[in-house]
Amino acid sequence: MLISVSGWRSPCSRDTLCRFLPRARRTGRWRLPGITPGTWWGSNSGPIPRPRRPPFPKGLSPDPETSGRVVAYFFDWQFNGENDEYLDPVYSQYREFFVLVDAHYDGQPVSWCPYIYVDNHHALARGLVQGFPKKIGQVHQTRVFASPGKASPTPAPGARFGASVSCDERTLAQARVTLEKPLEDPSPLLSRATINLRHFPTLEVGKYDKPAVHELVRMDYGDQQLAEVWIGSSEIEFYPAPREELADLRPVRSGMGFRGSMSYNVTQVFPLA
Amino acid sequence: MLISVSGWRSPCSRDTLCRFLPRARRTGRWRLPGITPGTWWGSNSGPIPRPRRPPFPKGLSPDPETSGRVVAYFFDWQFNGENDEYLDPVYSQYREFFVLVDAHYDGQPVSWCPYIYVDNHHALARGLVQGFPKKIGQVHQTRVFASPGKASPTPAPGARFGASVSCDERTLAQARVTLEKPLEDPSPLLSRATINLRHFPTLEVGKYDKPAVHELVRMDYGDQQLAEVWIGSSEIEFYPAPREELADLRPVRSGMGFRGSMSYNVTQVFPLA
Amino acid sequence: MLISVSGWRSPCSRDTLCRFLPRARRTGRWRLPGITPGTWWGSNSGPIPRPRRPPFPKGLSPDPETSGRVVAYFFDWQFNGENDEYLDPVYSQYREFFVLVDAHYDGQPVSWCPYIYVDNHHALARGLVQGFPKKIGQVHQTRVFASPGKASPTPAPGARFGASVSCDERTLAQARVTLEKPLEDPSPLLSRATINLRHFPTLEVGKYDKPAVHELVRMDYGDQQLAEVWIGSSEIEFYPAPREELADLRPVRSGMGFRGSMSYNVTQVFPLA
Amino acid sequence: MLISVSGWRSPCSRDTLCRFLPRARRTGRWRLPGITPGTWWGSNSGPIPRPRRPPFPKGLSPDPETSGRVVAYFFDWQFNGENDEYLDPVYSQYREFFVLVDAHYDGQPVSWCPYIYVDNHHALARGLVQGFPKKIGQVHQTRVFASPGKASPTPAPGARFGASVSCDERTLAQARVTLEKPLEDPSPLLSRATINLRHFPTLEVGKYDKPAVHELVRMDYGDQQLAEVWIGSSEIEFYPAPREELADLRPVRSGMGFRGSMSYNVTQVFPLA
Repeated sequence: MLISVSGWRSPCSRDTLCRFLPRARRTGRWRLPGITPGTWWGSNSGPIPRPRRPPFPKGLSPDPETSGRVVAYFFDWQFNGENDEYLDPVYSQYREFFVLVDAHYDGQPVSWCPYIYVDNHHALARGLVQGFPKKIGQVHQTRVFASPGKASPTPAPGARFGASVSCDERTLAQARVTLEKPLEDPSPLLSRATINLRHFPTLEVGKYDKPAVHELVRMDYGDQQLAEVWIGSSEIEFYPAPREELADLRPVRSGMGFRGSMSYNVTQVFPLA
Repeated sequence: MLISVSGWRSPCSRDTLCRFLPRARRTGRWRLPGITPGTWWGSNSGPIPRPRRPPFPKGLSPDPETSGRVVAYFFDWQFNGENDEYLDPVYSQYREFFVLVDAHYDGQPVSWCPYIYVDNHHALARGLVQGFPKKIGQVHQTRVFASPGKASPTPAPGARFGASVSCDERTLAQARVTLEKPLEDPSPLLSRATINLRHFPTLEVGKYDKPAVHELVRMDYGDQQLAEVWIGSSEIEFYPAPREELADLRPVRSGMGFRGSMSYNVTQVFPLA
Repeated sequence: MLISVSGWRSPCSRDTLCRFLPRARRTGRWRLPGITPGTWWGSNSGPIPRPRRPPFPKGLSPDPETSGRVVAYFFDWQFNGENDEYLDPVYSQYREFFVLVDAHYDGQPVSWCPYIYVDNHHALARGLVQGFPKKIGQVHQTRVFASPGKASPTPAPGARFGASVSCDERTLAQARVTLEKPLEDPSPLLSRATINLRHFPTLEVGKYDKPAVHELVRMDYGDQQLAEVWIGSSEIEFYPAPREELADLRPVRSGMGFRGSMSYNVTQVFPLA
Repeated sequence: MLISVSGWRSPCSRDTLCRFLPRARRTGRWRLPGITPGTWWGSNSGPIPRPRRPPFPKGLSPDPETSGRVVAYFFDWQFNGENDEYLDPVYSQYREFFVLVDAHYDGQPVSWCPYIYVDNHHALARGLVQGFPKKIGQVHQTRVFASPGKASPTPAPGARFGASVSCDERTLAQARVTLEKPLEDPSPLLSRATINLRHFPTLEVGKYDKPAVHELVRMDYGDQQLAEVWIGSSEIEFYPAPREELADLRPVRSGMGFRGSMSYNVTQVFPLA
């Protein structure tokens, strides 16, 4: 999820000599653990009605097999680069909410991220460069702690987790997951490639419709690992808000819920021809 | 750390009939887990110089045995009451920094909290009623995640954790802990009672020096439990800021560091005669 | 609105010698300007239905003349004490929303504040001591700027202003005012005394219903001044949210709107027998 | 300062059909008023020492006439588009700090913005597209209110204003301005063009040094107006912080201070050959 530790630097700051990306980025030696009670839901067999049609860029189309399936993720992240950034959590911790919509690219099943919110401006800048349309939002999810008690669920049958996201002082989504059993083989959770749209507008009169950058790319997540993944049931609700389109994706039904931990390295993105 | 789930309600709201405390409070059935890389440090044998003398209220005096010892705590909390509050983390999660100063009360070794910062206004209101002089602050600490990787330490020898606290847009303290070994018997960490000063001013001309409430109380933590406690070395620095006195307590040396998880119930406070 | 510039200090900090209130407080030489597009609305003649009955403490009752009238205020404040605090806006600026409900005390028409939100923790602490049940909230209102343009209304017939307040990531109220004419004599806006309830709970088992402090007080606003007050029409909406009761006061109709600037000194509160 | 009211939308949201810019943007009918106590300072005649050399991109060089002059601005903004956005201040109000460094482009005196902080994510996204390297920061400045009092300065000789900016929980700059007299002809304040660097990285291995967009542009501010501009003396200090380079520009001396209000329309940027 993190591409550049210096995403927010002046593009011509003294130390970086007009390079946006630090050395850490170029050597691909990062790792990013996270923990998520994601909720997974979708429409039933028919296509989603037009008013709820997820927005696809040119080149992507609805997945005819799972038409309308959307997966919502709440993440607590902590990242690291070459300088022990995990020891400075003001900089390296962030919480994120996003939805991935099932899509097809060139006949293949992929995921597309139309909406994403994060509470850390470093993560926001890096995401924009990767093609994630990030906004600043506030994201919260129930945590697990080592000491026992009623206030801390443990991964076990019946354990419940809550989560929510807000933007511009309005709650956009709330979700709950109830665990049922561990997921023996979580690899299907990682089977779809994530396709983003890197976009950078042109601001010249007469050229507004010809963006400077507008390219589909495939995320490259290296050394991806999942741990303590449980599945169960879920509930999720989306709420309308000014300027926000998330609620257009309101679920026809809530599907499988899941919760686990994930880590990976980011090294690059691959442009799609 | 939490006394009342409705601390912020209007004291005469419709439902509570002029009772500040909810039923959950009166039945003492809460539990509050937390996780902390606290740092523990102190002066050496001599008394702390006057300019650094921690502020004690009448009735408390420096502990002659450990004169000047101060323990700094960074906590990530999640609380629960009678209504599954842990499922609404906007309300029930908070992060907190405070220092406890070794003191004597009536010849007994106790702890005194002169400064405390928290990022949740519900926790702030409840703390004020308990006698904690809470302000709003931003608190961050390195977390442990289940999935492996360079960005997430695991409790193991050499594991490092960072933490910081800010208030009014200024960083007040930064700390690091390096773990060495598990603490077999963590009960000494809980041996001192915490003494607070419940204080509520009078705002009548001529009576400013006669506060309406000004009483020492002893915190009552029920069912206190510690888990995964490790000890090691620590570094901590305090930074001066307008209106803040924390930096007056700057350490002569950093002492033992520790990290672990804690939970307890809160049922009441005991006034000291 | 501001009583103590050091409301947030440790009650026994080194410099204040166990006095909560600074010298500035005791000499009553403060002044607090503010600017507000308040909105004024109320029910028509009959009493408000029980489910919407504003919460009154013992000693206050609905005003039989204006039964159910509630005035909502959005304020941008800047305060000053003895140390040029207005030059440190991180500390001295804050934005506030509150409602005042028409009430009777001892046969006299007064105002009662059941709900109030502020974005500055210093202002919150001071308000709690004055008897305002403050929570942290985010408050915004359209501003006037000196340079002309479509983005900045000027006080003139037809000028419009918007405002909103949120708490715990949910918008609680939105309002608009459209100006019609200057208010020649704004003194009626100040005619009612504000009655607060200073409240500080007891946390001992068996005494929860006997708060340590529970007293009605009358606010004392010295040297109160109004400037550039306009009146017109208003729209206001309240939205339900967990733990919030503001929406119980939802208006039967929106009444007169107003906008202006106000300043005053605070020196004390008067306990009501 | 604002280019696009929908800067944060998904680049392929349903309504905008893959157009980043709304209609309002394309018709150039916006206006943005602001109010600022900017502080103006600079080195004396000699060049700034290398360690303090402001970072210039290729194509810009230090201004040999005013070598090292930097102007710091604190702005309170409110913007409007085609939909009365000024009535929704959560969206349309923001506060901003930035520095402009005197530079030469093609032999002409221009301004270059190496560092800029803003408290609103909408403004951040739009700025990035214009070539402003914006980060999220907290910005505060003393305000003027209509009602009289010690807490509100009025534009008059001797009036003082304070301001500060923070990022990632650290204060980066503090400034004060003391007014002396109105500026009869403020047009010299607008004489230099602002040159930005629109930059969007490439994230492919082997191409990190070949950004997708890296072009100097000239800002186009239409219908620019200044009001109530006063000048006087100033003080400003920059403070070091992790990852921040602003303090490298620490002033050799503080120069003229100023305060006033400004508005303009934004319609486009002009690429420089």
